[in-house]
Amino acid sequence: MVSTTKQHLLELGLSLLLKQGYADLGVAQLLDKAGVPKGSFYHHFESKEDFGLQAIDLYMQGVHGALEAAFGDSSAEPLAQIRRFFEMVSEGYKGDGYLGCLLGGLGQELSGISPAFRKKVEECFGVIARRFEKALRVAHARGQLRDGVEPRELADLLVNCWEGAALRSRLRRSGSPLGQMLDFYFAAVQPTKR
Amino acid sequence: MVSTTKQHLLELGLSLLLKQGYADLGVAQLLDKAGVPKGSFYHHFESKEDFGLQAIDLYMQGVHGALEAAFGDSSAEPLAQIRRFFEMVSEGYKGDGYLGCLLGGLGQELSGISPAFRKKVEECFGVIARRFEKALRVAHARGQLRDGVEPRELADLLVNCWEGAALRSRLRRSGSPLGQMLDFYFAAVQPTKR
Repeated sequence: MVSTTKQHLLELGLSLLLKQGYADLGVAQLLDKAGVPKGSFYHHFESKEDFGLQAIDLYMQGVHGALEAAFGDSSAEPLAQIRRFFEMVSEGYKGDGYLGCLLGGLGQELSGISPAFRKKVEECFGVIARRFEKALRVAHARGQLRDGVEPRELADLLVNCWEGAALRSRLRRSGSPLGQMLDFYFAAVQPTKR
Repeated sequence: MVSTTKQHLLELGLSLLLKQGYADLGVAQLLDKAGVPKGSFYHHFESKEDFGLQAIDLYMQGVHGALEAAFGDSSAEPLAQIRRFFEMVSEGYKGDGYLGCLLGGLGQELSGISPAFRKKVEECFGVIARRFEKALRVAHARGQLRDGVEPRELADLLVNCWEGAALRSRLRRSGSPLGQMLDFYFAAVQPTKR
């Protein structure tokens, strides 16, 4: 079981990382904001890097929760499940004041200098893309995708285009790039209406 | 006229910012790598922030060069001009070892903590998007876009989806997300072939 102090540090750290990024967040600042005595950080985490990687794990718990909620609704068609997932994610972004996606933020900031973060973020995108791919294969089998598209590639495209929209949403503190991207994507992948 | 020392610092700084990001790049490291005496940094730049913003200006000089080369070729159709622009940008990414886009990198890292960087990066994306919009309006007038699409929105989508592909390219050190995104975008915006 995760100690409440550790959980508290990760939850607070997650929100600070989303806003400030990694380098700008000092361990002393984190402990001060958390009201946790100095010295306890290295009781719970091997290093700041270990803390950051565990904060990504916590972020992914939220992502997995949304994936399960969206794709667990077997009454919905697969493209509607995907849309539902992103609506939940968008609601989360809104709740944060549109700061974008932690994976995109830390991926950009750290992938040039930290092989561990680079690997971690790419793995997380891979996990999310594979869940989309599964739904897109069902959509494909049901004739709900345009001819000639490839579910695996479409799944990666969805992750990537979303991340770009999330960056723009962060810059503008607005949800509109997110909805625009989804409308564009779903119009592009579905068969042309006759 | 820009002094050669200043230009040298900006050029070197640009390549270091692309790899390391902003926070990880120390002024002392930059001066050391540049072989420039300590103290001369603040002769050329008001602050590290001023240096970073001017590095973005230098990056944008390259972007403007590619925009002029691509859109200055009036014998090419507008969608081919856009594609040509991104092919030049992709070549640049390849030359850097696929580190992605400086605007996306600094936008993610700094827009939560620096209003100056947030404004600067959003302005740069706006400039690029408006050039795309101009070409997309020509394409629209020539019947080269799908019915019901809106050039201004399509231009922003292009910038945003590209930035997501650039992030994934950075994570994977690969050009394939870039080409995939362009193929997807151009297939989506053009009229369906009969």
